[in-house]
Amino acid sequence: MTVDTHAASDPLRRRLRRLSAAEREDEARSFVRRYYRETGAEAQGAPPLATRLADVRRDLQRQGWYDHTPDELAYGTRLAWRHHARCLGRLFWESLEVVGARTVTRPDEIAAGTFAHAAAALGDGRIRSMITVFAPVRGGVLPAYIESKQVVQYAGHPMPDGRVVGDRQHIEATRIARALGWQPPGEPGDFDVLPLVVREPGGRRLLYEVPPEARRELPIVHPTDPGIAALGLRWYAVPCVTGMVLTIGGMDYPCAPFNGFYMGTEIASRNLAEEHRYDWLADVARALGDDPGAPGPPLWKDRALLELNRAVLHSFGLAGVTIIDHHTASEQYMEFARREQAAGRVPSGDWSWLVPPQASPACPVFHLPMRDLHALPNFYHSRAVDGAALRPNHDDELRRPWQLRWERLRRRWWNWRRQRDGLRR
Amino acid sequence: MTVDTHAASDPLRRRLRRLSAAEREDEARSFVRRYYRETGAEAQGAPPLATRLADVRRDLQRQGWYDHTPDELAYGTRLAWRHHARCLGRLFWESLEVVGARTVTRPDEIAAGTFAHAAAALGDGRIRSMITVFAPVRGGVLPAYIESKQVVQYAGHPMPDGRVVGDRQHIEATRIARALGWQPPGEPGDFDVLPLVVREPGGRRLLYEVPPEARRELPIVHPTDPGIAALGLRWYAVPCVTGMVLTIGGMDYPCAPFNGFYMGTEIASRNLAEEHRYDWLADVARALGDDPGAPGPPLWKDRALLELNRAVLHSFGLAGVTIIDHHTASEQYMEFARREQAAGRVPSGDWSWLVPPQASPACPVFHLPMRDLHALPNFYHSRAVDGAALRPNHDDELRRPWQLRWERLRRRWWNWRRQRDGLRR
Repeated sequence: MTVDTHAASDPLRRRLRRLSAAEREDEARSFVRRYYRETGAEAQGAPPLATRLADVRRDLQRQGWYDHTPDELAYGTRLAWRHHARCLGRLFWESLEVVGARTVTRPDEIAAGTFAHAAAALGDGRIRSMITVFAPVRGGVLPAYIESKQVVQYAGHPMPDGRVVGDRQHIEATRIARALGWQPPGEPGDFDVLPLVVREPGGRRLLYEVPPEARRELPIVHPTDPGIAALGLRWYAVPCVTGMVLTIGGMDYPCAPFNGFYMGTEIASRNLAEEHRYDWLADVARALGDDPGAPGPPLWKDRALLELNRAVLHSFGLAGVTIIDHHTASEQYMEFARREQAAGRVPSGDWSWLVPPQASPACPVFHLPMRDLHALPNFYHSRAVDGAALRPNHDDELRRPWQLRWERLRRRWWNWRRQRDGLRR
Repeated sequence: MTVDTHAASDPLRRRLRRLSAAEREDEARSFVRRYYRETGAEAQGAPPLATRLADVRRDLQRQGWYDHTPDELAYGTRLAWRHHARCLGRLFWESLEVVGARTVTRPDEIAAGTFAHAAAALGDGRIRSMITVFAPVRGGVLPAYIESKQVVQYAGHPMPDGRVVGDRQHIEATRIARALGWQPPGEPGDFDVLPLVVREPGGRRLLYEVPPEARRELPIVHPTDPGIAALGLRWYAVPCVTGMVLTIGGMDYPCAPFNGFYMGTEIASRNLAEEHRYDWLADVARALGDDPGAPGPPLWKDRALLELNRAVLHSFGLAGVTIIDHHTASEQYMEFARREQAAGRVPSGDWSWLVPPQASPACPVFHLPMRDLHALPNFYHSRAVDGAALRPNHDDELRRPWQLRWERLRRRWWNWRRQRDGLRR
């Protein structure tokens, strides 16, 4: 609850994309047109496209921002998911559940809404993909936002003897939380959940303890090898990302926590295994009876990775919590790519992120040519990292006039048929 | 020994990079300067840089090509290796053995030289990295060259029942070899070695049976599981690439077979495992006692890959033939990258090729930021695929005037000291 006096310029402002008024208008127009084109919004009672475009343009010119209708927002978030080149699980982009919370701006309400989201997404264990959208950036006015990268993050404690207890990736986040008054519940442990950090528009950071229902954790056990369970590994059920900016039609939503479910390799091959994370591969190998110090090729690493993956998938399955293996996820991505192509769209993909880090060439996505189109709407971390490359996909727009005319003709024909049938009945 | 009447335009000409006279001169100048700068050639008795540059320029302007000195050729091939962004084994680039064979132009001599190379590279099993450089393209005149991609390639036989016996990647090469009169030694088998195909400048293709000493093969056995050996898998010892163009200082050498040694994953995770190659993963899994049809996550693929990798490394070790595991190879690449950076150069790397396809995040190269500089000299397949992007790295050249002056000063000081010591003695 300390005022962070070091942040004279708002760190969020340095992360947001910088758009000229013309660029923002271009993105808005492109998004509204895409929304109308793909959903057939006019046929479902939305105002005519031209009217909506004029409204958006007027708002942008008057005040520098506009409000999405609830339907635009819902479809925009789904587009952002569909376009995100680093996500392998996009087959279900149309089923994303969108919770509108744009009027919620107080930090404690944001924290409460985020925790409620995490609990609802988990439900009885069959995880639903959800997003909660809090207030956007309106002109120059920043809303409160969540500074933590995820709802559940394990602290990383550097010890006096040079060891690190916990997740090395969060050493800095742990230092900040401690400086703001947080303490681990007891002795520094491997799985101390950090508090959620929310930053007020003024710059003040507020810490919120993550309640039990938003941080369900699972012990990692192996189907056959009891040595793995003895290591005391665990992980949390719901990966709920809070640190990315959702950008739709020129409007940035810096506070829009979303979740999917885990692919096993994220936990087993990366978080628990990597040297700059938990670095537990040698311990796992020893638990399996391998000797990491033995001469010869160190394939104990490959075996530890395999069995850790097996254990993670098994543990989630045992607890009835949704998880996907990398082979099935790859197959689903192939289906997503096929459907996108069938719809006349080029799926946007980042090979180094999409290819699973385990048994890679046995996953079909390894052999799929792809490129990252940086299409809008999308999610991004920061303009410096991935935001600056984003742009509306005008290649896709080229089909617009012809398609709109076709849609209009089809609509007229339907209306005419409905009238005729009505007259006959 | 059939004349290939379908090739009115030479297929090699369509693969070679197209350079204007100015571009070729630019590449030549850039290479000669780099050679002088990095080797200190002047101090070792080479003519002064200015003289050599003038000679090269005169030759290029008169006839469109120039001859590399033996030292230039040797250093140029090593640079081509050092610059090749898709090779993980570049730590030893300076130790490449270069066999000059630029006067050899007859197809049967090329075949004999290539087979001798493969045999010499293998030697007693401790494989040496070698390259044999046959005649370059001189002006518009193409030399004879090897059309096969590697010295040893296993045939792929499509069977009447739809199955494929052998390597699916070589179905087309097998069809061509058969059309030119080749027959597998008996019933179509999984490991029928295709003949080496050499193309004469006129377009005629000649086939040469690969002699036993150039095609040493190893049975794949597992250290503990006899089921693997029973599958009858095998692979060849020396990967000798014959299908790439070596390009140095504006001169293309389309016939320059080179070899390194295998990294285990190339054989185990890719050649023997992939669906469009041998597709043996399910058989390996069954040999290990796993059931590929069992419900649940198909981690039998991961286990089969692990044990196949173990078997390949074991089999080569057993036979005393050089092979490297992916962990050690990654460590060596990290050392290469460190040395390049210490020398003030940016190592050129293609992430999707360098990261091993097995236990990827446990290999340090997974976490190394890199980019492909497409630097010259280099090796390339075709201008359409990878040749068109190649260019001299003039960023590197920027240090030239200062460095040359420094080298000259240092040389003078050494000469002065030597003279002084001589006078004193």
